[in-house]
Amino acid sequence: MRDMLGREELIPVEKALELLFNCAPFRSPSTTVVPLDQAYGMITSADVLSPEDLPSFNRSTVDGYAVNSADTFGATDSLPAYLAIRAEISMGEMPSLSLKQSEVAKIATGGMLPEGVDAVVMFEHTQQIDETMIEILKPVSPGENVIQAGEDAQQGSLILKSGHKLRPQDIGALAGLGITGVQVFERPRVSILSTGDEIVPADEPAKPGQVRDINSYTLSGLILNAGGIPLRKGILKDHYEIIRDSVAQSLKDSEAILITGGSSVGTKDMTAKVINDMGHPGVLFHGVSLKPGKPMIGGVVNGTPIFGLPGHPVAVHVCFELFIRPVLEEIAGLKGKRFDPLTKTVKARIGKNISSSPGREEHVGVTLEEREGELWAFPIFGKSGLITNLTLADGTAVVPLRKFGVQEGDMVEVKLF
Amino acid sequence: MRDMLGREELIPVEKALELLFNCAPFRSPSTTVVPLDQAYGMITSADVLSPEDLPSFNRSTVDGYAVNSADTFGATDSLPAYLAIRAEISMGEMPSLSLKQSEVAKIATGGMLPEGVDAVVMFEHTQQIDETMIEILKPVSPGENVIQAGEDAQQGSLILKSGHKLRPQDIGALAGLGITGVQVFERPRVSILSTGDEIVPADEPAKPGQVRDINSYTLSGLILNAGGIPLRKGILKDHYEIIRDSVAQSLKDSEAILITGGSSVGTKDMTAKVINDMGHPGVLFHGVSLKPGKPMIGGVVNGTPIFGLPGHPVAVHVCFELFIRPVLEEIAGLKGKRFDPLTKTVKARIGKNISSSPGREEHVGVTLEEREGELWAFPIFGKSGLITNLTLADGTAVVPLRKFGVQEGDMVEVKLF
Repeated sequence: MRDMLGREELIPVEKALELLFNCAPFRSPSTTVVPLDQAYGMITSADVLSPEDLPSFNRSTVDGYAVNSADTFGATDSLPAYLAIRAEISMGEMPSLSLKQSEVAKIATGGMLPEGVDAVVMFEHTQQIDETMIEILKPVSPGENVIQAGEDAQQGSLILKSGHKLRPQDIGALAGLGITGVQVFERPRVSILSTGDEIVPADEPAKPGQVRDINSYTLSGLILNAGGIPLRKGILKDHYEIIRDSVAQSLKDSEAILITGGSSVGTKDMTAKVINDMGHPGVLFHGVSLKPGKPMIGGVVNGTPIFGLPGHPVAVHVCFELFIRPVLEEIAGLKGKRFDPLTKTVKARIGKNISSSPGREEHVGVTLEEREGELWAFPIFGKSGLITNLTLADGTAVVPLRKFGVQEGDMVEVKLF
Repeated sequence: MRDMLGREELIPVEKALELLFNCAPFRSPSTTVVPLDQAYGMITSADVLSPEDLPSFNRSTVDGYAVNSADTFGATDSLPAYLAIRAEISMGEMPSLSLKQSEVAKIATGGMLPEGVDAVVMFEHTQQIDETMIEILKPVSPGENVIQAGEDAQQGSLILKSGHKLRPQDIGALAGLGITGVQVFERPRVSILSTGDEIVPADEPAKPGQVRDINSYTLSGLILNAGGIPLRKGILKDHYEIIRDSVAQSLKDSEAILITGGSSVGTKDMTAKVINDMGHPGVLFHGVSLKPGKPMIGGVVNGTPIFGLPGHPVAVHVCFELFIRPVLEEIAGLKGKRFDPLTKTVKARIGKNISSSPGREEHVGVTLEEREGELWAFPIFGKSGLITNLTLADGTAVVPLRKFGVQEGDMVEVKLF
């Protein structure tokens, strides 16, 4: 990595990343099945298909009366339809009765529709005459206020792709489908080797000339934050054999290796030599046009990325975010990220009109898409009881309290999941 | 919470939050001392002061020669200063020698300056004549390329405030100061009570009319994400005594209680009655002008927040982010958040000129401040080896590869920590 005059050749960050990712796929951690309550933040290692239809029955989405919609056609405030109250549906039970024409049953949100009816009229649009009779003040169409059996998920349909990082709502969806164990990648293990004759452990007094080991602690936090497991391999003296032996051992028990420090000129070259001597392709870049972080070394040995990080704490942070986090995400099995993970609220243009009542702050599930350099949020219209609304969504667009809605092309704030 | 006509009165989200936070401070979890490698993401429960000066010695920030700056004054390429190489400083050791006038010592980044010198000349600005003599081609001022003893942190100075969420760089800073245990709040425990006669556990088949427990799994993930510990208390039948007894028990072992479901009309009122019967002040709001999430109930009982969440999975998500996350952060002891935690990259105007070389992507530590509705990023100028640069910073401003720098008022992208 030296030019004709023997000087270190610096390459841009993008080029360095390109050299790294040309070596992908990297060696991956093994897969395992974890119980659902330990799955948060893990990454699926196989597609998840629905084992059954969800819901398994026609379910009411409102509190009201289950009706045959045809009995309500033409009903108005001044000319209501009069229907007979036949029963009240108990929650969690299959209604044994079958309703006949002009009969209704009282039903709560989540209740199962009995046979003979196809819609639910909300309480607000009814008036009770006595124990046995109600007036219907507004018609309903077939299927209105009802989630049909299989409407949320059909047996065999794709619920989550392989390589998906499990968010809270994904775990809820799996629970809803009765999936209590999920196949995921183990978290990648990342070895941290601190080098430098001047470095002493954090729990020891630093004598004049010595400094305590800062970077292995910072890196442990960054690795945890990126979903990995940090393995702190201790502080190594600046000797070729010591560093080489520790790297060789780390190649056996981790999916990536970070060597920090090596601040003296000789050590930088020593780190590069160790990486080159370990296997192929070895060092990919040594020096990046980046400040701080210029002395950064990146390499790959038989599918395992190895990084030589500068000793400065700030550079460690910058280099981690630029180079190591994306590599760790690749190792961890993360695929098709839903959107830039570095931002959690974004401005976007709304892709369809949303009507809304003023005096209500409305949150609408959206998917995000970039079109000609602009971010668009496409509302997912669906019944709010559908769990797949949430697994599909990248976030929610907010229609503020004092608005009647938003028109296609309006800017909205999207809270990402 | 009903109006004159007996209708449920809806209040805006901001008003509901105001009612909740008027009851703060809430009952906090206890405090504990955790080892540094378990401290990531925990919240400090006491101010952290520096136990010593950092560094404890004058340290070089570059590879070069330690010199007496006066010996270099006036040195140029054509008229260099000739100085004698007296020694090479070993890393991690206190140099025993004292340099006299016109003497230099070879020193690496991080090395300790010997007595008799006050600056370091970078290798690039020297030319070695032979084993004993160098030419200095550029003068240095006193203290140049040196971090003075105590410059990073002075003994007794404030390193981290109480109520600060520990980021990777904070943990590194503590390690650097030799602090290997840190006093933090325990993570808040949050009880989740699922109610509804129609709800069955996720590992059981759902018969017609039944649905599996989705929300307690979604909430567990959201609580973990917000830094809490979810305690799933099982699925309760819709009976006043059963819900009351479970709430009473949860008041003993958790700092917040979430009651989900209660989709039938009677249950909503039952949840509110349980909260009111438990203690003061009881229910604060019942119904919010929000979609989804209208039936949301919020209350406080003797310092413990209790929420009644609607049964719809989407509403659970929206209500958690709007009401429960900020309350959990308050319970967890989080104070003075550095900036909106929901965004991780922001656009800001730079508060001072930064000069930069093109061909280099430069990352500069900044603090963020809102002034007259605009976000400003103020560069933290300091030597890049200072760990306090990172603990002070809210993020790093990026000066792109092809720029000579940025002028005060220019828009920059800031990556938040």
